[in-house]
Amino acid sequence: MADIINAFVDGGEFRIEGAAQGSLANPLTGRSFVAKDLFDVAGYPTGGGNPDWQRDNPTPTAHAWAVQTLLDAGASLIGKTITDEVSLGILGENPFYGTPLNSAAPDRVPGGSSSGTAAAVAAGLCDTGLGSDTGGSVRVPASFCGLYGIRPTHGRLDLTGMLPQAPSSDTTGWFARDAATFRDVSSVLLGETIDTSTPTRLVIAVDAFGFCEPETTRALSPLVEALAGLVDDVTEEVMAPQGLSVWGRAQRTLQPAEAWATFSDWVERTNPRLAFNVARGLVMGSQVPEADWHWANMMRREVRARLEYLLPPGTVLAMPTTPFPAPKKGLPLAEQNRLRDLILCLCAHGGLAGLPQVSIPGGLVDGAPVGLSILAGRMEDARLISLACALENART
Amino acid sequence: MADIINAFVDGGEFRIEGAAQGSLANPLTGRSFVAKDLFDVAGYPTGGGNPDWQRDNPTPTAHAWAVQTLLDAGASLIGKTITDEVSLGILGENPFYGTPLNSAAPDRVPGGSSSGTAAAVAAGLCDTGLGSDTGGSVRVPASFCGLYGIRPTHGRLDLTGMLPQAPSSDTTGWFARDAATFRDVSSVLLGETIDTSTPTRLVIAVDAFGFCEPETTRALSPLVEALAGLVDDVTEEVMAPQGLSVWGRAQRTLQPAEAWATFSDWVERTNPRLAFNVARGLVMGSQVPEADWHWANMMRREVRARLEYLLPPGTVLAMPTTPFPAPKKGLPLAEQNRLRDLILCLCAHGGLAGLPQVSIPGGLVDGAPVGLSILAGRMEDARLISLACALENART
Repeated sequence: MADIINAFVDGGEFRIEGAAQGSLANPLTGRSFVAKDLFDVAGYPTGGGNPDWQRDNPTPTAHAWAVQTLLDAGASLIGKTITDEVSLGILGENPFYGTPLNSAAPDRVPGGSSSGTAAAVAAGLCDTGLGSDTGGSVRVPASFCGLYGIRPTHGRLDLTGMLPQAPSSDTTGWFARDAATFRDVSSVLLGETIDTSTPTRLVIAVDAFGFCEPETTRALSPLVEALAGLVDDVTEEVMAPQGLSVWGRAQRTLQPAEAWATFSDWVERTNPRLAFNVARGLVMGSQVPEADWHWANMMRREVRARLEYLLPPGTVLAMPTTPFPAPKKGLPLAEQNRLRDLILCLCAHGGLAGLPQVSIPGGLVDGAPVGLSILAGRMEDARLISLACALENART
Repeated sequence: MADIINAFVDGGEFRIEGAAQGSLANPLTGRSFVAKDLFDVAGYPTGGGNPDWQRDNPTPTAHAWAVQTLLDAGASLIGKTITDEVSLGILGENPFYGTPLNSAAPDRVPGGSSSGTAAAVAAGLCDTGLGSDTGGSVRVPASFCGLYGIRPTHGRLDLTGMLPQAPSSDTTGWFARDAATFRDVSSVLLGETIDTSTPTRLVIAVDAFGFCEPETTRALSPLVEALAGLVDDVTEEVMAPQGLSVWGRAQRTLQPAEAWATFSDWVERTNPRLAFNVARGLVMGSQVPEADWHWANMMRREVRARLEYLLPPGTVLAMPTTPFPAPKKGLPLAEQNRLRDLILCLCAHGGLAGLPQVSIPGGLVDGAPVGLSILAGRMEDARLISLACALENART
């Protein structure tokens, strides 16, 4: 089974038992999880999806904070999972380790860069799993694999032991197949009890629904209606007055430039082997003009201001997670990059504004999953989880 | 022995016997050769120094023209040798297959892209070997490994079955340790009897000797004097009135742009794994502005005109092959690229003008070889070989 899914890195299947239960059962006792190969696990190499990164970096002697936190809560770690190379990718195809299987749509990509974690959770190999989301790397595979996935408030979780990409956008996220597991894991990682209180106001992002393919909007509309039934007040708003593509371009300026700053020492020192498109992204990052970077940062301020205005406490915004379900595997690069940029236009606000976002299994387009996202203001992560639970109850 | 040299690609050591001798002995009977892994050998994959190129291309069913020609002349092929990836490199470090040993200077690079062929010939694993020279890929490893090497007149040899890079500059070249073997192989591949008549006039390229490091100029001066003793008339001239760096920049514009045209279909279709610097070179090639390409072609006309003016029949030009001996292995990329561009300034005329050039073992700098080059007019290849033989005789 695990072989077919191809979720794990070479030698990345093992078992580290969670903390034994005390007088009270630990909250995640009996639950299993995987960790994207960006997270340190003591005694196992951190490969970052690239054999030369693994070669050039020492095997860690301590667990990453998120790994340790889940182990302390009683969950058992069953392996390390494939990621796009040093998290630079959104589709989940890694030429060194292969493409993890999207068991919900086997001829399609799983989404990335948290591809192996999403594949492992979707296939039922484990209950939950750690990923990272800088430009969409949890939200996109959650959407494509039909999972719950969260990108928490930026800066909220301790990222110690997680390989960085673009620190001003990096977050640790996680996945689950059902809302109850998602809630339990979220409570542990957020360090917050998650009660049943839910937001009272819903904003529907009409520009985001207009940006995505009509089939996706149609597939998500029953869930949007169900969501509307759970709140007191529903309004439609333009999420990005400047344009989702303007937001996308700003993130596509800042993130590659920051990734180049993160990886340039390693790259220039060791000349690593990389998939061409990963290398090209790094080169593009190295070429971002100072003025473009400067004005993209100005746009970031506007994105933050806009979303804080739209999302006072108690308000949640609904939008499609991705403009379409998972693309087919093995597309030419020009087509991959076209699709990546379309996806990015719906994901850029995450890295730009740092607000929490949960992707919920939303519907099917041509039999393939696509997710509905809910966003809230800073530190309102728990309200998104509560709402996801209420929505699952309302559907069943 | 062969293991230490690391000249051969995986599975690239074998033996294909040369044609049995007829009533007259074939000219290369008893001689052995290797072929850079850009040359087709029927029944063996053409890897081009990259595992994904090998995966994506069918195993050839016919020998490359140059391979067949040497076999027909009685030489035996003993293997396929490591090259910089798809011939894009000048130092000879390949992270997929390792760096072939420069047995004349083991802590230094062998030079590339014909690295494995030069290493095999230098170590005495074979008598001669096939390489290719687009921007210096025979001349540079010949200089660094202390070998005879030729870049013949562009367009003279049939390149069928040799993986192209930049067709307006591509040539098939070869190496030998001694002038007699070099002459015999050259006679076969050029299809021309090589008599003992030598050029009568020598031009010393003062700008090229000024461009290279003073130690290199000093190391080569005894050989330049010996060369002067073989001709009737010696003059000093500026080779590149526009500047060797202007010539270098023109070639560094045209060649990467043409390489991108050659490889872009493969790259965009398959997203191959490449060393970062190889990928960066391709990206740079994809970004050459049309106007830069246009004016670089204008400069190419000027280079051709200048060298044709300097090199009427019977005249030969002497210059250092490289500005210094082989650099140390494993330098950071910024330093590698700085050295590459210095080397390129002394090699660019080859691709730009297409004139024949022979590199002769020239001298030692800090114990490492550096080559002296002689150039002649179009189709004067045989006169360069004759002169190399006469010079070897004069030295011994």
